[in-house]
Amino acid sequence: MTELRKDPIVGRWVIISTERAKRPHEFPPDRTERKEGICPLCPGSERMTPPEILAFRPSGTANDSSWTIRVVPNKFPALRIEGDLGKAGDGVYDRMNGIGAHEVVVETSRHDVDLFDLPERQIEDVFRAYRARVLDLKNDKRFKSVIIFKNHGSAAGASLTHSHSQLIALPVVPKRVIEEMSGCRDYFRFRDRCIFCDIVVQEMEQKVRIVEESGDFLAYTPYAPRFPFETWIVPTRHQCAFEMIDDDQIRTLAAIFRRTLRRLNLALENPPFNFIVHSAAFQMGAAEYFHWHIEIMPKLTKVAGFEWGSGFYINPTPPEEAAKFLRELPE
Amino acid sequence: MTELRKDPIVGRWVIISTERAKRPHEFPPDRTERKEGICPLCPGSERMTPPEILAFRPSGTANDSSWTIRVVPNKFPALRIEGDLGKAGDGVYDRMNGIGAHEVVVETSRHDVDLFDLPERQIEDVFRAYRARVLDLKNDKRFKSVIIFKNHGSAAGASLTHSHSQLIALPVVPKRVIEEMSGCRDYFRFRDRCIFCDIVVQEMEQKVRIVEESGDFLAYTPYAPRFPFETWIVPTRHQCAFEMIDDDQIRTLAAIFRRTLRRLNLALENPPFNFIVHSAAFQMGAAEYFHWHIEIMPKLTKVAGFEWGSGFYINPTPPEEAAKFLRELPE
Repeated sequence: MTELRKDPIVGRWVIISTERAKRPHEFPPDRTERKEGICPLCPGSERMTPPEILAFRPSGTANDSSWTIRVVPNKFPALRIEGDLGKAGDGVYDRMNGIGAHEVVVETSRHDVDLFDLPERQIEDVFRAYRARVLDLKNDKRFKSVIIFKNHGSAAGASLTHSHSQLIALPVVPKRVIEEMSGCRDYFRFRDRCIFCDIVVQEMEQKVRIVEESGDFLAYTPYAPRFPFETWIVPTRHQCAFEMIDDDQIRTLAAIFRRTLRRLNLALENPPFNFIVHSAAFQMGAAEYFHWHIEIMPKLTKVAGFEWGSGFYINPTPPEEAAKFLRELPE
Repeated sequence: MTELRKDPIVGRWVIISTERAKRPHEFPPDRTERKEGICPLCPGSERMTPPEILAFRPSGTANDSSWTIRVVPNKFPALRIEGDLGKAGDGVYDRMNGIGAHEVVVETSRHDVDLFDLPERQIEDVFRAYRARVLDLKNDKRFKSVIIFKNHGSAAGASLTHSHSQLIALPVVPKRVIEEMSGCRDYFRFRDRCIFCDIVVQEMEQKVRIVEESGDFLAYTPYAPRFPFETWIVPTRHQCAFEMIDDDQIRTLAAIFRRTLRRLNLALENPPFNFIVHSAAFQMGAAEYFHWHIEIMPKLTKVAGFEWGSGFYINPTPPEEAAKFLRELPE
């Protein structure tokens, strides 16, 4: 069983694996990409994963090899779906059972391509799969938020090379989401407008940080990015949660998202990166004040003691220069 | 010039180098330890650094080679000491000039040893140097807090191998420090006690997370650690700021700190690590509610999309097992 524990000072939750605890010698100093042998995410390996939760296939039956996208429970989940929360205290400390959902979205049946190599139509299906899974997980009243993310490349935390992303549903609203939602709510209370809507207006006027604009969505480098070439994609019309996206928006998003990832890949020569869908937590009445978006973070610099101690980041590339570079790349 | 910019949503500050902006090709995909040639931190290289701010030497004169510890301004500072803050707005965004102090504490004249190889007496001097520098920087009314930290090993962000730590004085109280101080203040308001004092009592009673206890200081693995083998050292008597440490405490601290680093080094086979001194920001009236401490974080796992998106951490080693392992190591 895993356990959720809360830092009593800053309120940060951590997931502690008590079940398969790692001993010191199990942390290799130079861990590299896992040797894969038979890839568990390839067609033909369906029995190497838990039974599928969702799949897109032109024809065929569940768990056969004819799928184009497949969502399965993570075989080594950070959190488990069964059980009660078992909230409890221990002196100054707080804990609960490690309940949650941890799913893997296999973005393609092909082992040798990356997400941004896929045709737009396939990337639309990836977003449809995310939407379907969030809408389903939202029905489980134990869950308060879902994080959708991708780790690409070993330096960004990927352990399998077959292109995939992940969803984790959590029984608490995580600190990072609370911070973001509180920040947006404070701004809304002060100005009676959504901060992201204001940012979209300002970026469209100033034009110095825009990577691409395509009607429904804006790709831009944020004013205060943590990382060089960090790029955000935001819907231009107000919408608080990713799962509210409609099919028209999915088509525009897939196109701009694909082009943005391709720009980053071309500019930075296949960098490791993470992307995270930032969406409103459930049951927080965020309709007016929050605005979902995707944050793409290439991992070119290292997070060191100063960043850990301060929460400051040192970024050697101004976002205006990064945006200009990305904007002017040949298609 | 560098610029300080504030994320308008979560209030996180970033330092943007506008002066020597990095272009995409300047981010090598597999950056390894910098080739050093002549080490700028070795005796004999005094002219390769800016003039010293502080040095300990048995005899001799400023900037000669007879020093045992030397504090110099960082040659490539994240922030610059000269100038006004120049606070300004730009629509929804906020910025100021990149004013601050960025100093390097060269912990030994020997190129081939690590901090934890040094005799206790020398580590005491390292702490004396930190204290002297913080007390001096505190006199500059532009500064609101100082972060003292060390990056050890390339994976933890070190770019020079000669053993050194760093101090950065900031014109704002950084987010991470505000969070920690607010958490402590909230607890104090609720209970009229310092949370760290309560933690010390509980840890001494439960004894499951103690690595070592030595009168003035406790070394323990925190209840909700972000990283495997994360270890904190806390003064057992209430004290809000590191710079209040007296000479007796420095002696005890140097001893327990050295042994703790040696335990981690032995257990994890020379892991990359960061340590950060968490101390009260200036002018925040923190005497009663805040309690300084040192957080040591071995870097054995990677921070990936889920951590970035949620602020959650997944830790595969329960702190109770890490503490037991560290406690039972042969001396």
